[in-house]
Amino acid sequence: MSHNSFGKLFKVTTWGESHGTAIGCVIDGCPPLISLTEKDIQKYLDLRKPGTSKFVTQRKEDDKVEILSGVFKGKTTGTPISLIIYNKDQRSKDYGDIKSKFRPGHADLTYFLKYGIRDYRGGGRSSARETASRVAAGAVARKVIRHIVKKDIKIRGAVTQVGALSINPRNFNWTSVGSNSFFCPDKKIVSVWEEYLGLIRKKGLSVGATIRVNASGLPAGIGEPIYGKLDTELAAAMMSINAVKGVEIGLGMEAASITGDENSDEIRAKGKKIIFSSNNAGGILGGISTSQDIDVSLSVKPTSSIIKPQKTINEKLKNTTISTKGRHDPCVGLRAVPIAEAMMALVLADQLMRNRAQCG
Amino acid sequence: MSHNSFGKLFKVTTWGESHGTAIGCVIDGCPPLISLTEKDIQKYLDLRKPGTSKFVTQRKEDDKVEILSGVFKGKTTGTPISLIIYNKDQRSKDYGDIKSKFRPGHADLTYFLKYGIRDYRGGGRSSARETASRVAAGAVARKVIRHIVKKDIKIRGAVTQVGALSINPRNFNWTSVGSNSFFCPDKKIVSVWEEYLGLIRKKGLSVGATIRVNASGLPAGIGEPIYGKLDTELAAAMMSINAVKGVEIGLGMEAASITGDENSDEIRAKGKKIIFSSNNAGGILGGISTSQDIDVSLSVKPTSSIIKPQKTINEKLKNTTISTKGRHDPCVGLRAVPIAEAMMALVLADQLMRNRAQCG
Amino acid sequence: MSHNSFGKLFKVTTWGESHGTAIGCVIDGCPPLISLTEKDIQKYLDLRKPGTSKFVTQRKEDDKVEILSGVFKGKTTGTPISLIIYNKDQRSKDYGDIKSKFRPGHADLTYFLKYGIRDYRGGGRSSARETASRVAAGAVARKVIRHIVKKDIKIRGAVTQVGALSINPRNFNWTSVGSNSFFCPDKKIVSVWEEYLGLIRKKGLSVGATIRVNASGLPAGIGEPIYGKLDTELAAAMMSINAVKGVEIGLGMEAASITGDENSDEIRAKGKKIIFSSNNAGGILGGISTSQDIDVSLSVKPTSSIIKPQKTINEKLKNTTISTKGRHDPCVGLRAVPIAEAMMALVLADQLMRNRAQCG
Amino acid sequence: MSHNSFGKLFKVTTWGESHGTAIGCVIDGCPPLISLTEKDIQKYLDLRKPGTSKFVTQRKEDDKVEILSGVFKGKTTGTPISLIIYNKDQRSKDYGDIKSKFRPGHADLTYFLKYGIRDYRGGGRSSARETASRVAAGAVARKVIRHIVKKDIKIRGAVTQVGALSINPRNFNWTSVGSNSFFCPDKKIVSVWEEYLGLIRKKGLSVGATIRVNASGLPAGIGEPIYGKLDTELAAAMMSINAVKGVEIGLGMEAASITGDENSDEIRAKGKKIIFSSNNAGGILGGISTSQDIDVSLSVKPTSSIIKPQKTINEKLKNTTISTKGRHDPCVGLRAVPIAEAMMALVLADQLMRNRAQCG
Repeated sequence: MSHNSFGKLFKVTTWGESHGTAIGCVIDGCPPLISLTEKDIQKYLDLRKPGTSKFVTQRKEDDKVEILSGVFKGKTTGTPISLIIYNKDQRSKDYGDIKSKFRPGHADLTYFLKYGIRDYRGGGRSSARETASRVAAGAVARKVIRHIVKKDIKIRGAVTQVGALSINPRNFNWTSVGSNSFFCPDKKIVSVWEEYLGLIRKKGLSVGATIRVNASGLPAGIGEPIYGKLDTELAAAMMSINAVKGVEIGLGMEAASITGDENSDEIRAKGKKIIFSSNNAGGILGGISTSQDIDVSLSVKPTSSIIKPQKTINEKLKNTTISTKGRHDPCVGLRAVPIAEAMMALVLADQLMRNRAQCG
Repeated sequence: MSHNSFGKLFKVTTWGESHGTAIGCVIDGCPPLISLTEKDIQKYLDLRKPGTSKFVTQRKEDDKVEILSGVFKGKTTGTPISLIIYNKDQRSKDYGDIKSKFRPGHADLTYFLKYGIRDYRGGGRSSARETASRVAAGAVARKVIRHIVKKDIKIRGAVTQVGALSINPRNFNWTSVGSNSFFCPDKKIVSVWEEYLGLIRKKGLSVGATIRVNASGLPAGIGEPIYGKLDTELAAAMMSINAVKGVEIGLGMEAASITGDENSDEIRAKGKKIIFSSNNAGGILGGISTSQDIDVSLSVKPTSSIIKPQKTINEKLKNTTISTKGRHDPCVGLRAVPIAEAMMALVLADQLMRNRAQCG
Repeated sequence: MSHNSFGKLFKVTTWGESHGTAIGCVIDGCPPLISLTEKDIQKYLDLRKPGTSKFVTQRKEDDKVEILSGVFKGKTTGTPISLIIYNKDQRSKDYGDIKSKFRPGHADLTYFLKYGIRDYRGGGRSSARETASRVAAGAVARKVIRHIVKKDIKIRGAVTQVGALSINPRNFNWTSVGSNSFFCPDKKIVSVWEEYLGLIRKKGLSVGATIRVNASGLPAGIGEPIYGKLDTELAAAMMSINAVKGVEIGLGMEAASITGDENSDEIRAKGKKIIFSSNNAGGILGGISTSQDIDVSLSVKPTSSIIKPQKTINEKLKNTTISTKGRHDPCVGLRAVPIAEAMMALVLADQLMRNRAQCG
Repeated sequence: MSHNSFGKLFKVTTWGESHGTAIGCVIDGCPPLISLTEKDIQKYLDLRKPGTSKFVTQRKEDDKVEILSGVFKGKTTGTPISLIIYNKDQRSKDYGDIKSKFRPGHADLTYFLKYGIRDYRGGGRSSARETASRVAAGAVARKVIRHIVKKDIKIRGAVTQVGALSINPRNFNWTSVGSNSFFCPDKKIVSVWEEYLGLIRKKGLSVGATIRVNASGLPAGIGEPIYGKLDTELAAAMMSINAVKGVEIGLGMEAASITGDENSDEIRAKGKKIIFSSNNAGGILGGISTSQDIDVSLSVKPTSSIIKPQKTINEKLKNTTISTKGRHDPCVGLRAVPIAEAMMALVLADQLMRNRAQCG
């Protein structure tokens, strides 16, 4: 029931504010006897790290994770795993405009309206900084998935659109994703994006993005209908990421436009193996995995903190304008890839454990 | 934790199969002293009822709801409300092809792969019949919302696209929705849809649809970050509806394409009232309501049961083809409107209670 | 989170009032492919049935259970199992004193203080009638236990004390329990209790009882520390039964009085088998089963509805007296045995599923 | 669902092992705008601190708590409160016998049987060290209770029995509790206990204890039937404390022995105030508070780590004996008082929030 937790059996509770002492999470329910070290987690955090390109926040975080509990002699013990990341670059000195004014499109305002108190330090709890805990927990989830399925489930993400500039789906290639700082699967569009984002930044603006996340190798039968469907929980997982405004499974919104025969993935058997003519369903029927790739897309809105002045109000409800200077991303969507992957891993680990409980 | 339950404090657990004895739900956590009769619930069930136009299943269900508990002398008592709807038109005689074959795009297959057993009677638990319980529970949720907010929150849905045919957003008018059998807000397109769906039906095909759901009047501050965000739970709620493949909040997928200044809803104060220049956020920032309209869109894929023959397998994994005759919808999306409204009501009632618990 | 639910993975939600239309429950999470019929459930309900001796309420209930969903062709399908028991003997005519006055020691008063509304019909939701749903769900739980452990776990209860009259522990014999209407394991005391209860009844009084519940054959390793301990959940399970005021695991309260060496169950290994010199721990250490018998005791307070007049107030807060005539038990504890057994079964089924989820 | 969490709306998740880096907890759901400092928490931790008398473990812990999140400028923000206590005195060098052998009566064995791995450092997760997190969280819960009820609810505990030596109930005086190192409410028995425990210690033995916890000032109407009853959750709360084997509400086990007229607390009204002739119910009827004192008793078994040699086995299932030297308590029950108080506070805070959600 706690709203800072995610998952039912593999349960992650995150805590911490952007510019507080530290952030972290507690993972409850992890199976025992899984090998786990800080290095296993750190490598995913490093992928998410701000400051890896000139198009993401220049905040120099090390995001150094420590395991405080739940692991003994390199193995999980079945007890809660507490992870902590100290905030080093807290720059508490000057918050400028954002100390008393609200940024349009930012959660500053609604946290204040809900709780009646404002932690103005860099977005407080609503900051994307919280997602470092997700990435850390996601690294553990990947290990759990492997532990249960007994093979690697590849979980991969890519940026498929930056602002108005979409990749060419025919050029989509997972191996390209790692070779550029945009997680872009279409190597032909990389330089165009680079130029475009340079322009956006120069103008003090920001732009949205579309992310695609994919899991390959998941067995059939995973997902709990009616309200714990695999797609239901993936939708929640993705929508819980800051700035996400849309989630699609398989064909997504496009499924509305076509006919039943165009949409259906026809079924064939090859011996004991079931194969499909296509994967419009994104690997999920009735909330349960089919054994095809799980395919999810999400849209990330443009960063709300921009330099271009915007009309807003302050805490005293006086009209004013705001211009957010400082270290913000022209395209926050670029940083969402490792987070979306982590959320996918969290959902799958949890669902695999739940399936094991009910179906043995 | 139960996967047939929805909500945390206003919790609904649904049960029942399409062609079993009955379906129903238990609502736990409803506040006491709310007036409630079967009539209050029946009127929403009647809107959902199959057989109201020639474009929806001709199954003649009365969907007559009975309140079995939790209400005394016309008022809720704070104890669980049990609702039951007996299945009258069970036509158990002949399931034809669907008894042993799997329909492409249907949950038949995945339920069988997960549970190792097949209730072939009209889709069993995966049938859209389960959604009658949601609509019934949603009627109670609406009363709870009013009880807490002390005014009516208008929750309304409309079909905005049928197959490739989208409404003209400029013609959007909520008052048109009730005057046609398509829940269509653009009265100019009604006859076009009618002709189009007639054609689809004649061809033995089906087609998808897009639904928009809106809540008007919700106060600011509702929604629980980080994993219990209002949009997170709306996304889950909508994605849990059969055949839904995409969910959008506010601008949704389109938010990816635009710039920060185009996307942000600028803020002004008029006395103590906060107003916004636009509502691209769909009424939600950081997972918390802003006081603007809550705006959600969803895509519904085309009905998977079609007459046109499709390649598939049977329970023995033999290749075959299937043609689903009988009483199925050319556009199942048309029936999703009252369901999506109900899910919106369930989310809001639950979040309002949770807000009351934490913030008083 | 719903307070009318019990269990986490094998989750039971009960509903219904004493003199409403029906009572029932929904079981969510039951594994598929378990054979289940109404008969399997009915036999446990029959044990609980009021009216089986002259010392329990003379209400003539058939307590006829119907399975409404979740079972197809005699097997569970993995979907929610809805059970219903219609209330036949509702005698709605005359509630006499209890319509407007509160019985001292009864939940009438506190329900009214909490919810501001009073369902005066036979105790409403607070009536022991709700426990029929527990017994029904417990019957399903027993099947789940067997399904997971692959052998029978014997779950048995007995009355070990009636009022001041305790059994002689040396005469304790499980086989005696079934041969008398007191669930008494000491056949020598049966006639004494009979006479004693006859006297209590003649005086218009009531008396308490102590129950012991035991599970034999549970493997080691079941139970989830820290807050989901096996004993923690057994304590909650038993304390949730009407009129229970104390719960003990193993030595229980007596453990306070002795020394560490007297209390500890020494450990030996015989090949791969671990054996213990005694079972003061009641089969649980650190909240996890040891493989010894699970042993729980509980006290049930005397029935609060008695004929002897008592000082009380009415709904208008006026002082008055009450004398409860009608069909009430001189010792409600006698009826608690099948309920306590059912609660034990619910806890074990749930914990076994949870153990399977985490530990494989 | 996580088994290291307690509470539903005021939810505490604890983590950490006895001799790991640190222990701590995350509190999710705390209302905003409550003043909170480390000092507020530290004062309760200091009461629990080992080493305050010669009869409790001589481990020199400072148990210095740090607030890592959820508080800004001295006030709670509504976001998760993360508390950490670093383990300073870890003495990792020598675990002696307990490294490879199991202590009879200790959770060492069952954790090993469940998880297949053994963290032999001072009991690992099963150590009473975890309870420091409960005491810390309990301090926050007390603030929440005051915040909601708008007055102080006195929550107090006392030791009422040490081994066979019970206090004289007629001498019970809350003010005596603070003036001795035994939390003893009967000042006449203090010196007897002192001598007795000295003897027990000299013999290398240990002894059990009985604790009573009391809450005064709680309004009527708190508690959620059927499975979220106030007494149900208090029973679970107390039974989750290490070494507790029995829990009683009001008269507890004794309720079995008496008649209905002896047991019932008669009711009178004085104006709008409801008063009772006695409090045998321990302030709870039907799981809901009556406005009388909440009264709970619990038994704590003798410490299982004793010097007197006992038969046991080692990890390889070989028979052997064990004698636990080192820094252990002759009566671990003495340390349970602040923990039992904390658990009472956690239950009340949570139930008050839940009552507010449903009943306004």
